[in-house]
Order: sequence, then structure tokens, then C-alpha cells
Amino acid sequence: MRIVVAPDSFKGSLTAPEVCAAIARGLLRAIPDAEVAQRPMADGGEGTLDAVLAAVGAAGRRCTAEVTGAGGARATAAYGLVERDEGTTAVIEVAQVVGITDAAGMAVPVAQRSTRGVGELVRTLLDAGVRRFMVGLGGSSTNDGGSGLLVALGLAVTDADGIPVAPTPAALPRARNVDASALDPRLAQCDVRIMSDVNNPLTGERGATAIFGPQKGVAAEVIATFDAALAHFAALAEAAVGRRVAALPGAGAAGGLGFALQLVGGRFSSGAQVVADLIGLDDALDRADWAITGEGRSDRQTLLAKAPFVVAQRAAARAVPVTLISGAVDASAVAELSPHFAGCFGLPDGPLSLSACIEGAADLLAVRAEQLARLICLTRPARGPVE
Amino acid sequence: MRIVVAPDSFKGSLTAPEVCAAIARGLLRAIPDAEVAQRPMADGGEGTLDAVLAAVGAAGRRCTAEVTGAGGARATAAYGLVERDEGTTAVIEVAQVVGITDAAGMAVPVAQRSTRGVGELVRTLLDAGVRRFMVGLGGSSTNDGGSGLLVALGLAVTDADGIPVAPTPAALPRARNVDASALDPRLAQCDVRIMSDVNNPLTGERGATAIFGPQKGVAAEVIATFDAALAHFAALAEAAVGRRVAALPGAGAAGGLGFALQLVGGRFSSGAQVVADLIGLDDALDRADWAITGEGRSDRQTLLAKAPFVVAQRAAARAVPVTLISGAVDASAVAELSPHFAGCFGLPDGPLSLSACIEGAADLLAVRAEQLARLICLTRPARGPVE
Repeated sequence: MRIVVAPDSFKGSLTAPEVCAAIARGLLRAIPDAEVAQRPMADGGEGTLDAVLAAVGAAGRRCTAEVTGAGGARATAAYGLVERDEGTTAVIEVAQVVGITDAAGMAVPVAQRSTRGVGELVRTLLDAGVRRFMVGLGGSSTNDGGSGLLVALGLAVTDADGIPVAPTPAALPRARNVDASALDPRLAQCDVRIMSDVNNPLTGERGATAIFGPQKGVAAEVIATFDAALAHFAALAEAAVGRRVAALPGAGAAGGLGFALQLVGGRFSSGAQVVADLIGLDDALDRADWAITGEGRSDRQTLLAKAPFVVAQRAAARAVPVTLISGAVDASAVAELSPHFAGCFGLPDGPLSLSACIEGAADLLAVRAEQLARLICLTRPARGPVE
Repeated sequence: MRIVVAPDSFKGSLTAPEVCAAIARGLLRAIPDAEVAQRPMADGGEGTLDAVLAAVGAAGRRCTAEVTGAGGARATAAYGLVERDEGTTAVIEVAQVVGITDAAGMAVPVAQRSTRGVGELVRTLLDAGVRRFMVGLGGSSTNDGGSGLLVALGLAVTDADGIPVAPTPAALPRARNVDASALDPRLAQCDVRIMSDVNNPLTGERGATAIFGPQKGVAAEVIATFDAALAHFAALAEAAVGRRVAALPGAGAAGGLGFALQLVGGRFSSGAQVVADLIGLDDALDRADWAITGEGRSDRQTLLAKAPFVVAQRAAARAVPVTLISGAVDASAVAELSPHFAGCFGLPDGPLSLSACIEGAADLLAVRAEQLARLICLTRPARGPVE
């Protein structure tokens, strides 16, 4: 029996590779000769790099680069390179460069934080010949409209006196001229996939600052100021580049990195779809009898192109039954989730607290997978012989 | 698809018929044309009467009789009559006559409580021509060594002056003569199945009084006195009847009713096995593709002839896969339970408190059954066509 295990991470509990390992352990207890393909999934957010590298095995490698962190200090950022038939793809998690969990960056006020390190990393990769990028936008600490990235890639932003303006929320209001003539020409040759589940525009009441600013430290009383600074910069940058993207869905992701990346030709893609492509999920499913996916918590949001739903769609296209095993399945969403899965299952096997679920997740996963495998194996022969 | 649903009750939450209904509801959501046979199980304890009557349908009927309650007041006791090929079987739950939840009985000190009402009920049924009895011993409030039952059935117990002695723990020490000559002769023609999961002897440190007396109100300082009273009575009764059963396993069940019933020819049986026979579980399983059983909580005890285990054994004998769905499955017992079931599953689909599990049990059961049915249906066609 060939089983593909392709779950997202259980956030706050297990990484996607850890989820895979636990499920595989349980499956093999029930079916010792099962062929289990572990394909950890991700949605472009935190953990995407690790999941992709774990899923592609020898085709990938983890690298690091020295860049400028969100607060201005030097930082070491991890990224990945994956070799595939179509060439080398770089996997970038912006959180590795300007992450909200990075203490050094967070020690600097959000008004001073910048994404220039992300641009430096892209430039380094361009220098190395990379032309395919997957950029995951989750977990950033910045709110600079992506101005840092653009400046690092050659965009000139100056004030009324022709003096360069720092690409930060505090300085951007002083910008008077933006010149794109020095923007790295190699960007035009690139395939940049932007991965994010955020579809907010850059500015306005549903914009980056209003929705995501507060969690990054933008005080309520300066939201309007920040928002105006981004709008001001975006208008100048759009005019300079000759492309309008600020109102597009996702421009407001990662404090406006979604805007900047689209301005240089990046295309928003479902993170889970991009990851599925990169890790060769379709190939694995082509040879599968059964697939298992999951995530920390499944609810209606799951059906909005989250990893388990992408796995379900691709499995369905191949008539491979796919079962959902999540940390929790929202009882009110089961009816909507059901048609997409060969069973939806949460983790605990009895009354259990959230903390106990999180702590015991690996063992609970193994038990759940084992018991489902037993059910399948034992109910199957009644209907027809195993091929 | 033909599915037999044969769970025990979820104690403190749902009766066995309610568990059946919830599981059936979920199964039919997944497989609208499934043929679901509801066979609520029981182990001879509380709920056995309701489960049996629900399982046998038109073959059974609920009756009542006026008898003496544990405390001496008149009480209305429910019992069941089931018609089967081999004749009429009466289903008696002693808790319906001398139950520990009966306020009137519990208002009288345990020293004065007696099981004579159980004997009256048996006599009434003998008068009606019934010769087959299933007697469930769980939940009694009495500790009279079954003397009340025996006296009601004709055993004469008198003191040194030839005055009748009341069949109660307080009075039994005065007994000097026991005469079995008037014991109802029809008992010899009867098949009496005693159902209990208690295997304690009548007296001694593992006897009825020492182990179960305290929960009935026997104070620690009078345990020895009560125990001696039962031993005294039992010796006289055994001599009179010419049969020794006080040391047999189960003689200590229901405060000694296990002794008295064995003394008149009753045989101890696994409650779950007796119930399975009475409700025609084997016939149902003969035509089944899949079976589901369960209980409030499954652990190592489950393997000691509890209802789910009996269902599992009978299903295994027919190569019918049987799945366990319980309120909770003890994580430390899963490895031991696993070989007996086509999957063991608890109820919650995420972190949940015990009270929420109990309160939402019916809906959780339906969801669990539905999802397992979806898994089976969808993983099956990949292997072979449905017959």
C-alpha cells in the first residue's frame, strides 16, 4: 500500500516534517510493509523553508546569507535552493530576514524597520544566477511598504533636496522623487512567486497598516500617518515603474512587501499550490493508494486554499482518497469539510486540554493514523481482494 | 452496506439505544442507503433492560409488578419479557427493585434493607409460567446475602423459638433454623442466568460486605458484624438446600444476591454474552459488512468480557471488521485494544473538556461515525469493485 503523507505544520506544536514522521510511525505500526511517502506541506508562512527542504530531499539544500536585519544590524538569513528540471528555485521566507520573532529587529521601533535585507538577499541570488523565486511573506515585523526591498534592488528614493530617503515608515513622507532607472534589470527575467494567504490591499481601512500594523507595534494613533506614508511612497514608486499594483489583493501582505514584489513583476500565488508544485506532490500522488493531510486546526478557512485543501484537490484529481487528520476539527465546519475528505479527524481520543493535545500531538497523531489504517485494512478485504 | 451498531451505554452520558441512534444518524449521512441494524448492548448492569428491549423490538415488552422495595414499602418494579424460539425470557434488573438510586429504599438503614421484592418478582413470573430468567445484579442497595429473595421464594428462616427471622443483616444473626422444604419447586425447572461483572465471594475480606458494603452505607465498624451475619445465614441455607456456593465467584454480587441465586440453581454468565444471545447479535452479524461497538471509556478492562469485547469476538468469528468508538480510549491501553478492533477511536475532534464531551456526546458520535464511514467508502473502491 502506497500512502502519501502531506500535512501542513501543527502551528505551536509540530513542524510539518514532524507531523509526517508521527503519522508515518503510526501507519507502519498498522501496515509494516506500507510504502509511506512523506511530503510535508506549507502555505508559504513560517516553516515553509523547512517543509520544502524536508520534502525534496537531495534536490534541495539550505544556505545562509549575511544581510541587513529589520532593525539595521547585520543578520544571517537562511534560505533554500531547490534543483528541478526547470532550473534552480530559491525559497525565501521573509521571516528569516525580517521576522517578528527576531529580537534584534523588534528592539527597533517599527517606524525605523525596513525590508532592505530581503532585497539584498534577492540581489545576492540574482548575482548567483538564480531567476526563480518563491517568497513566503508570513511573519514579518516591517511596515515599510516594501520600500527597503526596492531600494536594495536599485530604486532611488530622494527628498526635495535630492538626498536619499531611508526606506522606513518614518522617513518615507519626505520622499519627493523616485527613480526606477537603476532598478535591477535582471528582475525582468525572473519568475517570482509570492506566497501569502493575505489578500489585503496596500493601504486603506483594509490595508497593511490598519490590519497588521498593530501586531507589529504600530500605535493606534499613528496608523493613519503610517498608512499615508505608504500611500505617498506607493504612488511615487508606481509612477516611476509604470505599473499600478497597490490596490491588488495581497499588496498589503508583509507590511507592503506584497506591493513591492508585485511592482517588480512578482505574481501572487497560493503558497500551498506553489509548495505542492515544488515538492512534486502530484508525482507522489500519481502512485498513491491513500493520502493523509492535516493542519493544527481545520475550519472553514481550510477550504480557502490552505494546504490540506490543496492536497485534497490534487488527490481528488487522481481519485486518491485523502483523509484529514488535524489537531482539531471545528465541529461547526465538519459538514462543509466532509465532501472534500475521506474522513475528517481530530487528535484526542478522549477529553483532553489544549495544552495536553499540543504536548502529546506526536503520539496522538501516530495513534490516530494507526487506527485509521487498521480500519482501512480490515474493512477492505470484505469487498474485494487487495491487488 | 450492512452495518451492525452494537455499543454499550456511555455511562453518565447516553443510554445504549441513544448511542445507537447517534451512530446510525452519522452513518446514514455518509451512506444514505446503508442498512443499519441497531443492537444496543449491555453488560447486565444499569440500562440492560432498556437496551435489550430496544434491541429486540417487537419481540419484547416492558412490564411492571408491585413488589416490596428494599426498605419495606411497596414499589413498582419494571422488568421485561422477551419472546424467542426457545420460549419467554424475563429480564430483571435488581436495581429496578432494590436500586441504590431508589430514595425510599435508601432512607431505611442498610441493616434493615432486604431483597424480598426480587424474590416476589420471580415468584410472580413463575406463576405466569416463565422459566427463563436473566437477572442483572448491578446497582443494588442491599447487603442481605440474598436472604430476602430466598425467603420470598419459600425458604423458612426461624430463631431459637421458631419465630420467623426477617431477612435483613440486622436480624440474620438470630437465625437458628433454615428449612428449604417449602422452597418453590418450580425453580428446579428454571434457567436462571445471573449477569454481573463482580466475581467476589459472599464473605471474607474480598466479600460483598467488605468490598461493596461501604458504598451502601455499611459503616466501617460494623463490616465484620455484617460479614459474620451473612456467613452465618449462608452456612445454614447451604446446609438446608444441600449445595455450597458461598465461595463461588460472584456469590458476593449485589450484597449476596449472587449467592442466593446460585443456591437456587442460577448460573453466572457474562452479562454481555447473555445480552448478545438474547438480542440475536449473531444473526445480525451474520449478514453484516461492518460492525461498530463502543462504551463510555475503553481501557484494559474492556478486554475482560465487556460488551465491546464480546461484540468484537463474535464479529471476528464471522470475519466482520468491528470498529470501536468510545467516549474515551485510554492511551496506555490502545496497543492492547488494537488487535481486537478495526480501529479504536475516542469522541472529541479537538481539545475538549470532559463535561463538553459528555454533553455533546451524541453529536460527536454522529460525526465520528460519519467520518469513519466516509473513509471506508472512499478508500474501498480503489481496491476492488463494490459487490
